[in-house]
Amino acid sequence: MTVVELIERKRDGGRLTPEEWHSLMAAYARGDVPDYQVAALAMAVYFRGMDDAETEALMTAMLESGRRLDLSHLTVARVDKHSTGGVGDKVSIILAPLVAACGAAVPMMSGRGLGHTGGTLDKLESIPGFETRLTLEQAAKQVERIGCALIGQTREIAPADRRFYALRDATATVEAIPLIAASIMSKKLAEGLTGLVLDVKTGAGSFMPRLEDAIKLARTMIALGERHGCPTVALLTDMDAPLGEACGNAVEVVESIEVLRGGGPADLREVTLALAAEMLLVGKVAADRATARAKVAEALMSGAALAKFREIVQAQGGHPGAVDDPVKHLPQAPLQVEVAAERAGVVQRVEPRVIGRAITTLGGGRQRVDDEIDHAVGFRLRVKPGSAVRPGETLATILARDATTLEAAREALLRAIVIGEEAPPARRRVSHRITSGGLEELTGPGAT
Amino acid sequence: MTVVELIERKRDGGRLTPEEWHSLMAAYARGDVPDYQVAALAMAVYFRGMDDAETEALMTAMLESGRRLDLSHLTVARVDKHSTGGVGDKVSIILAPLVAACGAAVPMMSGRGLGHTGGTLDKLESIPGFETRLTLEQAAKQVERIGCALIGQTREIAPADRRFYALRDATATVEAIPLIAASIMSKKLAEGLTGLVLDVKTGAGSFMPRLEDAIKLARTMIALGERHGCPTVALLTDMDAPLGEACGNAVEVVESIEVLRGGGPADLREVTLALAAEMLLVGKVAADRATARAKVAEALMSGAALAKFREIVQAQGGHPGAVDDPVKHLPQAPLQVEVAAERAGVVQRVEPRVIGRAITTLGGGRQRVDDEIDHAVGFRLRVKPGSAVRPGETLATILARDATTLEAAREALLRAIVIGEEAPPARRRVSHRITSGGLEELTGPGAT
Repeated sequence: MTVVELIERKRDGGRLTPEEWHSLMAAYARGDVPDYQVAALAMAVYFRGMDDAETEALMTAMLESGRRLDLSHLTVARVDKHSTGGVGDKVSIILAPLVAACGAAVPMMSGRGLGHTGGTLDKLESIPGFETRLTLEQAAKQVERIGCALIGQTREIAPADRRFYALRDATATVEAIPLIAASIMSKKLAEGLTGLVLDVKTGAGSFMPRLEDAIKLARTMIALGERHGCPTVALLTDMDAPLGEACGNAVEVVESIEVLRGGGPADLREVTLALAAEMLLVGKVAADRATARAKVAEALMSGAALAKFREIVQAQGGHPGAVDDPVKHLPQAPLQVEVAAERAGVVQRVEPRVIGRAITTLGGGRQRVDDEIDHAVGFRLRVKPGSAVRPGETLATILARDATTLEAAREALLRAIVIGEEAPPARRRVSHRITSGGLEELTGPGAT
Repeated sequence: MTVVELIERKRDGGRLTPEEWHSLMAAYARGDVPDYQVAALAMAVYFRGMDDAETEALMTAMLESGRRLDLSHLTVARVDKHSTGGVGDKVSIILAPLVAACGAAVPMMSGRGLGHTGGTLDKLESIPGFETRLTLEQAAKQVERIGCALIGQTREIAPADRRFYALRDATATVEAIPLIAASIMSKKLAEGLTGLVLDVKTGAGSFMPRLEDAIKLARTMIALGERHGCPTVALLTDMDAPLGEACGNAVEVVESIEVLRGGGPADLREVTLALAAEMLLVGKVAADRATARAKVAEALMSGAALAKFREIVQAQGGHPGAVDDPVKHLPQAPLQVEVAAERAGVVQRVEPRVIGRAITTLGGGRQRVDDEIDHAVGFRLRVKPGSAVRPGETLATILARDATTLEAAREALLRAIVIGEEAPPARRRVSHRITSGGLEELTGPGAT
C-alpha cells in the first residue's frame, strides 16, 4: 500500500485502517513520508472527515510517537484542563494552583498565543525569571514535590503531532474537528492523567463559533479520553466577549492573582470555579458537586491557592514578589490611557477578535510563531455586554508602549465596543456540560 | 496575501484572481512556495474546482514559466494532436508523418508510459538509435527542414507544470479536470501551433471513463486553446478495448508501419484517419472534410507518409532499416506463444486496463517513472469485442522475455478477454466531435 493510494482512498470518501494510520504517522515522524503527501491527506480529511476508529488511531499514533509524563507512582488524582482558547482567558493560571491546593496533582501543559488568542506560557513569562521550558523529568519531580507544574509542550511529547500541527497551520487544514481532537488529546494523554476537563469555548471569539461544532469537538475528545482510560468531561463556556477585564500578558497575571485573593471579575470567577469543581469531581477528589465547590471556596478563602501559586512561581525560578506586589514586579506599560464612551447607551458587544488582534497591534501578541512579544501592553476593559454607559464614562484603559500603537489600539477598541439602545440578550457563561453519558444544558442562575 | 489565505479561500469555495494564480505559480517555479502548500491547494481544487478564469490563469502561468517553440517564421500550418492516452494507442506514430506528408508542419511533443497506458516516446525508442531528447532549437530546425519532429517535453517547456504534475502524481490530485486541462494545454500551446486536435478517449481503458467528464475535459481544453489564438477541436474516440491489435512497444511500431503502408487493423485506421483529417481542417490545409480525407488517402497510397516516417527516423538518428524490415531491425521477444480460446462464444470485452497492466508485468511498462522498459515484449491480439471464437482458436500471441512473466501474462490475457453468448452492443470508434461552437454526435457508418 503506497501513501498515494491512502490519500486517494480518503479523497474518495473511504477510511484508513488503524494499522495504516499507525504506520503512516510513524513513517512521517521518522521523516520517511514527505510533508506534501501529509498535506494533501489533511486537506482530504478536511473534506471527508474521519470516523471514530480513524481519529482514535491517529491520536494514538501521535501519542506513541513520543514519551509520557510518568506519574503513576503518585497516589493522588492527576488532573488537567484544556481550553480551546480565547481572549482574556487566563483561567489556567488560577486553576492550576487552586486545584493543586485542593489536593490533586496538576501537571499542566499549556501553549503560546497565536493570532487573536493569547497563551498561558506567554502570560506566565511576564513574571521575571519564570521558566516554562522544563524537561519531563523536572516537571515530574516538581509535581511530585509541590503538586503542580506549568510547562510547555516539550520536544519529547508527541513529536508527530508537533510536526503535523505546524504543517496544518501552513496549509489551511487546522479547522477539521477530528484533527483538532486528535492533536489536543495526543498531548493531554501524554500527561498521565486520571481525569481531564475540557473548556470548549463558544461564541464569536472562539475557535469554533458554531455551537454544533463545539459540541462535536467536545464529544470527539471525550470519546478519545474515555477509550484511553482517562475520564473526560467538557464544559461549554462563553467566548462571545473577552473573559474578565484584563487582556494582554502581565495585566492578565495581575487579574489572576486578584481571583486567587478571592476577588476579580464575576465572569472569570464563575468560569474558573465551575472548571475547578469539575476537575475535583473527575479526579474523584470530591464525591459530589457541593463538596467540590466547598473545597474550592475554602482553598481561595484560606489563602491556600494563592500560597500554592507563590510556591509554583518560586519553584520555576520566578520572582515571588510578583505574587505579592505585582505592580512593582511585573512589567508596566509606559502609556496607560483611559478611553471614554462617545455616546450614551447600552454595550451590545465587546468583539473578542477585534480586542485580540489589537493586543497584537500593541505588541503583546504574535502574527508568526517566532515573533517576540511585549508583556506590558494590553487592555483593562471596564464594560461588558449589557453595561449601561454615559458619554465620557471610561470604557477601558489601554496599556501601550508608544503613541502610534496606542492610537491604533484606541480605534480598534472603539470598533470592538458596540453601543446601542436596548440591553442585548443575556448569555450563559457556562452553558453545557458534556460527558460520555450525554449533553446537559445548564439552567438556573449564571447568565450574565 | 499569504499562501495559507489562498488555500483557505479555495478550501471554502472561493476563487483566486488571475494575478494570485500568476504570482503563486511564479513563486512555486522559483522554489519560494513549498510543495506542501501547493499539495494542499491542489486537493482543495480537487474538491472545489476552478472557474474558467482561474483555469486560464493557471495554464498561462505554467506556459509562461518556460520557453516556446518559435516557428512563427514558417508559412505552413503548424498542427499537433494530443491524446488522453490508452492501451494500444500508437496513433501519434502514424499521424505525425502522415499529416507532415500532407504539407503541414507537425512539431509533436509526446510523453512516456506510466501505469496501464503506454507512451509514444517509449515506443519510438524501440527503433535502434532513435533519439527523442532534442533541444528546442534542434526540434525547430528539424521541423523547418522536414516538417516534423517527434520529441519529449524538454526542461525548457513549462517547468512549473513539470514540477506541479510530479507533485500531483504523488498526492492523488491528478484527476481534477481543470488541472488536467491546464497541464496539457500549457505544454501544447508552447509548441507555437496554428491548430490543435484533441483525441479524448472514453470507455473502460480511458483516463476519464465517464462520458460527461470526457466532454467537460474536452470543452475546458478547447476554451483554453481558442482564448490563446489556437483553433482547437476534439474527437471523442473509443478506449473500451485496446486500439488495433499490437500492445507493447516495438510491436506497436510494427503495426504503425503497417498502417503507413496502407494496411493495419480497421479500428486503428479509422481513428487515425479521422484525426488526420481534423488536423488538416483545423490547420486550414484542406478547405473541407472531403478534400482533407482525399489528401490523407493520397499520402498513404503514394507512399509519401511512409517516406516521411523514414525521413524522421533518419533525422533523429534511428536505423532506417527499421522502417523497411522491422522484424530484422526491431527487438524481438525470445518467447512468442499463442494463447487459444478455451470455449466457443462471442468476445464480450477485451479489458484494456488488464492488458495494459499485463504489459507492465511482461516488463514493457512502468510502475515508477524511473523504471527501465523492455521494448520487445507485449501482445498481438487476434480478437475484438464482437469476434466469434471456437475452442482452440488463437486469441492472441504473447511476446515475453521469460517463462514466469509469460505465464502471468497468459492468466491476465484470459481474464481480459471475456467470452459470452450474445454479441455485445456495438460502440462507435469516433463518437463525438467538439468545437468551441458545440458538441456533434457522430452517426452513420463507423461503429465496430
